[in-house]
Amino acid sequence: PLKIVIVGAVAGGASAAARARRLSEDSEILLIERGHEPSFANCGMPYYIGGEIAHREKLLVAPVQLLRERLKLDVRTRHECLSIDRARKTVRILEVDTGKEYVETYDRLILSPGAAPLRPPLPGVNLPRVHTLRNLSDADRLLAASKAGGRAVVVGGGFIGIEMVENLLRRGIKTTLLERNPQVLTPWDPEMVSAFAETLRDRGVDLRLGEEVTAFGELPCGISVETSAGDVLEADFVVLAIGVRPEDDLARAAGLAVAARGGIVTNPRMQTSDPDIYAVGDAVEVRHVVTKETTRIPLAGPANRQGRIAADACFGRTSTFRGVQGTAIVGLFDHTAAMTGLSEKACRAAGIAHEKIYVHPAHHAGYYPGAERISLKLVFDPQDGRVLGAQAVGGAGIDKRIDVIAMALQAGMTVFDLEEAELCYAPQFGSAKDPVNMAGFVAAGVVRGDQPIVHADQIEELVTAGAYVLDVRTPAEFARGAIPAAINIPMEELRARLQELPRERAIIAYCQVGMRGYLATRVLLQSGFDKVRNLSGGYTTYRQKFAAPMLVSPAAR
Amino acid sequence: PLKIVIVGAVAGGASAAARARRLSEDSEILLIERGHEPSFANCGMPYYIGGEIAHREKLLVAPVQLLRERLKLDVRTRHECLSIDRARKTVRILEVDTGKEYVETYDRLILSPGAAPLRPPLPGVNLPRVHTLRNLSDADRLLAASKAGGRAVVVGGGFIGIEMVENLLRRGIKTTLLERNPQVLTPWDPEMVSAFAETLRDRGVDLRLGEEVTAFGELPCGISVETSAGDVLEADFVVLAIGVRPEDDLARAAGLAVAARGGIVTNPRMQTSDPDIYAVGDAVEVRHVVTKETTRIPLAGPANRQGRIAADACFGRTSTFRGVQGTAIVGLFDHTAAMTGLSEKACRAAGIAHEKIYVHPAHHAGYYPGAERISLKLVFDPQDGRVLGAQAVGGAGIDKRIDVIAMALQAGMTVFDLEEAELCYAPQFGSAKDPVNMAGFVAAGVVRGDQPIVHADQIEELVTAGAYVLDVRTPAEFARGAIPAAINIPMEELRARLQELPRERAIIAYCQVGMRGYLATRVLLQSGFDKVRNLSGGYTTYRQKFAAPMLVSPAAR
Ligand SMILES: Cc1cc2nc3c(=O)[nH]c(=O)nc-3n(C[C@H](O)[C@H](O)[C@H](O)COP(=O)(O)OP(=O)(O)OC[C@H]3O[C@@H](n4cnc5c(N)ncnc54)[C@H](O)[C@@H]3O)c2cc1C
Ligand SMILES: Cc1cc2nc3c(=O)[nH]c(=O)nc-3n(C[C@H](O)[C@H](O)[C@H](O)COP(=O)(O)OP(=O)(O)OC[C@H]3O[C@@H](n4cnc5c(N)ncnc54)[C@H](O)[C@@H]3O)c2cc1C
Ligand SMILES: CC(C)(COP(=O)(O)OP(=O)(O)OC[C@H]1O[C@@H](n2cnc3c(N)ncnc32)[C@H](O)[C@@H]1OP(=O)(O)O)[C@@H](O)C(=O)NCCC(=O)NCCS
Ligand SMILES: CC(C)(COP(=O)(O)OP(=O)(O)OC[C@H]1O[C@@H](n2cnc3c(N)ncnc32)[C@H](O)[C@@H]1OP(=O)(O)O)[C@@H](O)C(=O)NCCC(=O)NCCS
Repeated sequence: PLKIVIVGAVAGGASAAARARRLSEDSEILLIERGHEPSFANCGMPYYIGGEIAHREKLLVAPVQLLRERLKLDVRTRHECLSIDRARKTVRILEVDTGKEYVETYDRLILSPGAAPLRPPLPGVNLPRVHTLRNLSDADRLLAASKAGGRAVVVGGGFIGIEMVENLLRRGIKTTLLERNPQVLTPWDPEMVSAFAETLRDRGVDLRLGEEVTAFGELPCGISVETSAGDVLEADFVVLAIGVRPEDDLARAAGLAVAARGGIVTNPRMQTSDPDIYAVGDAVEVRHVVTKETTRIPLAGPANRQGRIAADACFGRTSTFRGVQGTAIVGLFDHTAAMTGLSEKACRAAGIAHEKIYVHPAHHAGYYPGAERISLKLVFDPQDGRVLGAQAVGGAGIDKRIDVIAMALQAGMTVFDLEEAELCYAPQFGSAKDPVNMAGFVAAGVVRGDQPIVHADQIEELVTAGAYVLDVRTPAEFARGAIPAAINIPMEELRARLQELPRERAIIAYCQVGMRGYLATRVLLQSGFDKVRNLSGGYTTYRQKFAAPMLVSPAAR
Repeated sequence: PLKIVIVGAVAGGASAAARARRLSEDSEILLIERGHEPSFANCGMPYYIGGEIAHREKLLVAPVQLLRERLKLDVRTRHECLSIDRARKTVRILEVDTGKEYVETYDRLILSPGAAPLRPPLPGVNLPRVHTLRNLSDADRLLAASKAGGRAVVVGGGFIGIEMVENLLRRGIKTTLLERNPQVLTPWDPEMVSAFAETLRDRGVDLRLGEEVTAFGELPCGISVETSAGDVLEADFVVLAIGVRPEDDLARAAGLAVAARGGIVTNPRMQTSDPDIYAVGDAVEVRHVVTKETTRIPLAGPANRQGRIAADACFGRTSTFRGVQGTAIVGLFDHTAAMTGLSEKACRAAGIAHEKIYVHPAHHAGYYPGAERISLKLVFDPQDGRVLGAQAVGGAGIDKRIDVIAMALQAGMTVFDLEEAELCYAPQFGSAKDPVNMAGFVAAGVVRGDQPIVHADQIEELVTAGAYVLDVRTPAEFARGAIPAAINIPMEELRARLQELPRERAIIAYCQVGMRGYLATRVLLQSGFDKVRNLSGGYTTYRQKFAAPMLVSPAAR
């Protein structure tokens, strides 16, 4: 039996403790947590603030008593680990409420201290009306503020920022969202989340993209927020959600290897540079399974699984963490965005050769009532078709498709494997050709060379260079908005009107989602037109990309 | 350019035709369909009868005009292919409405004739009130009958039988369901679908398991149904849904290889024994990817993909069909059952070594409102942990988990891969440890020997042989029903009461779902009890298995 000390008693730490107990009934397991509660549902807090989760107890996933009685853990809340003496294998602990300090020995130490919300050194950033959200005390404060009503400024349009906006709206709070980048939800590619921005605005949020906070100021009964656009906003409170920083100070002070840009360095068994010390969760650096590079992905799934692996390692088991692939999801009322693997911009940043396709199928059979559109982007290796990543947005069925592709990515599968995926089908659940198959068909067609494609952001350049833009939708669709300079020849008439098309020019064919455009491409390629390409995702992706007010075609005016 | 004749213009046939056109603009493509409509949504018909799908046009996925104008297909509805002359490479065709016959030549012939509902040679089986459901004419007749109200007898508790019962109930029809087997939905293992039987009964269906029809008789304005139990039921109409038989007569008459028990024989390129003739869909025999044996799985996904592959093959492409894994799903109001791969009984029938585990997690974070229970059964190789199959039942999130595991199965993954799956998590979509991870944890624990398990159907024998049954739930849970002879020692008290347990006897530990039972097993195994096993799935699986009225424990009386 060992004496295991675990610092941090939530996702990673509590999971490690529970697993350690199952592996060793006789070991002494100390769970040191400086907060009031162990094992709480961090991820539920925004919904508790918004009232969706009505009772605070719901957030206490494993209350102290359960951890003690069921798992025989020595849980010490309001105890903070101050330092590690690696030579002596001891930790110094502060009893927060009494100020008393004491020392504990360990055979194995597991660090799961998590990550702290960033608070940039801006004027007024420490005013009491500037909130961050990490633990239940924060949640309690934000709940009180939200119930009081009024106006709020949320800074940061990431997961937590978006979830907070949703829940403030639920409380009837007039909300402004400041996001420094030109898009919300930066892990996604911009065209995939432009609908989120629209929804935020439709719901009355004052969304300010490309704008950041420069200072906070005290008001008689409120707070002012100065922005980089020179505006001064007034609000009752601010939610600062611009990211987190790994809590690696303890590790750093103890001389453990810590990455230059933050994050405790570990091997796949979650062991730090000291073989008796393990680290897991938001505080560690991890390897990305696609780029093979180190990164940080502060999410609960990896934290939980890493905790389990660290416990295994303490007892000499060889379980290994395989790295992260960045599977993530976020909801905004009825909207959902999910992703796995690399985005297009991540591929670009990592210098990884990639191609992408877009499809917009219904989440279940179109003939069955309630079908909702999924916009699915698949990123893959243009040579061998290996899946590099996927993103999906829409309403229902988003999580399912990304989870399926996440599994494919974990298995190192290709677009040809997606083509042949055998998934559940009855009309209320899917389609005989599931959106995942559909994405596979299209991507495989691209890899095989059956379907040359072009992307929305290439059109302008191609048109300037003389390309002809062919819209094969119906006149009614065309009239509702089209790509500038496009000529409308409906698919049904195309074969009879081939002589109207220029043989010498490059042709960009497109339709509403890419299907008829593909068919048109096939017809033209086989009719002696050899510079034809289909606009992937069609006008739908075009609109998502430019998120512009509908461009009305000249013909329709 | 080729001349391709396709027989059957729905799932497999229309898909083949569409793909053939995309591959070859100049080929002549004839689509021969004896019915009134090509390309209709067979799978939507039950919901059209029930009124969920309000408009008949919705079922016409690709109307004749679209196929002609968009895909330049020579669609001939109400034309039936009568015979194939392989030597001359011609087919004889009957124009159904005129009785005229003519001959067409082909370069390639694709057969997608589907499967016909079984009509056993019972007295009265051809009475007009005995309906089957295959095409839109059948659906129209059943819609008329259902709208008239009254009583119905559905024969057969498979996919179509269950879907018909749901939709008849929607129309307010008093429904009896006869199923020859002791369970509905025979592809699933019985314990997984016992809840379906309960739901049917709760909804007022007169469900008769283990009972079959022996004769039909005409009544002045109705029909009588005699059953093997000696009962005579009276009804306004009957829906016969006891399975289908592949339409392989045309192939057989032409001398193509046909399996003894039915089904046209094809190679992975969907080629029959005649290299110029391909066959796809419900009419063909396929290889099961797990058993490697031939089987028939009449579902739309495989039919669609096979059609696509046959078209590829016509043009010399080497696309191959990988076989079927039996992914399937069915809904009954808010209940869903899905599966992929082999069931336990299929493993047993195929002589494949297997182990199984059960988990009952919530479909999303339990602390977020609306969480519904998933009962998930994972079947795997006890040696190497390879996933052999999975079944899930519950409400929401069933399709997702089975699709994820379907992907794992396609990739040949193991339970260790499920442990490390990185899936979407936010509270409204999943859990930090998704049900798929959870199933992986448990199964991996079994393979690694950390968690010896026992199954509900072994308890009686073990108890007879002297096993001690330990219920580690709370007294309140115990009082609500327990396994006969079980002794209740709550998990929280177990460590202090070890001396009450018999060291020499085998011990079966159990709780509500298997988690505390597992923990108890760990505690006991490490405390010198070496014959302890956990009841997989706990009392929940036990109840699903025996689907008996709650067994009240002696202590609780
Ligand atoms: C509002 C919010 C919403 C989120 N939503 C999601 C979501 O939807 N999906 C998702 O996957 N992830 C979500 N996350 C992220 C997820 O909660 C984290 O990734 C996960 O909790 C990380 O686990 P951890 O163990 O590393 O850290 P934590 O769970 O943060 O636990 C670390 C604990 O260590 C304690 N601690 C730190 N230092 C010391 C010390 N020196 N001594 C004693 N105790 C110490 C801290 O008090 C803290 O309680 C969300 C996070 C927040 C804040
Ligand atoms: C009520 C119902 C519900 C279903 N629900 C689902 C579901 O939810 N999920 C699922 O995956 N599957 C479902 N299916 C099964 C699915 O519809 C079939 O697997 C699929 O349609 C098979 O495709 P196919 O091309 O082989 O045959 P079909 O789609 O049946 O097409 C065959 C066509 O060939 C025609 N034909 C036959 N012989 C000739 C001939 N000699 N000359 C001319 N024409 C001919 C027939 O008239 C028929 O229209 C359901 C089926 C039914 C009947
Ligand atoms: C309607 C029907 C004729 C369509 O056949 P189809 O054209 O092969 O299939 P889809 O309409 O789904 O389109 C798939 C094709 O479009 C392409 N495609 C889909 N979305 C695309 C997009 N956004 N961009 C480019 N191409 C796209 C796919 O790659 C595929 O082409 P490929 O096979 O050449 O790769 C046929 O599926 C059918 O008859 N279905 C109804 C009957 C039925 O299936 N019944 C049982 C279930 S109820
Ligand atoms: C609550 C908490 C302490 C639980 O830790 P845990 O016991 O490891 O995890 P779970 O309760 O999910 O149980 C998983 C264990 O039960 C086993 N198990 C689950 N269902 C089972 C079943 N039906 N039969 C047998 N065993 C089962 C699993 O195999 C696993 O054991 P293993 O790791 O030894 O293989 C920890 O996850 C936690 O603190 N969570 C809340 C904090 C958090 O995660 N926040 C971020 C998200 S909001």
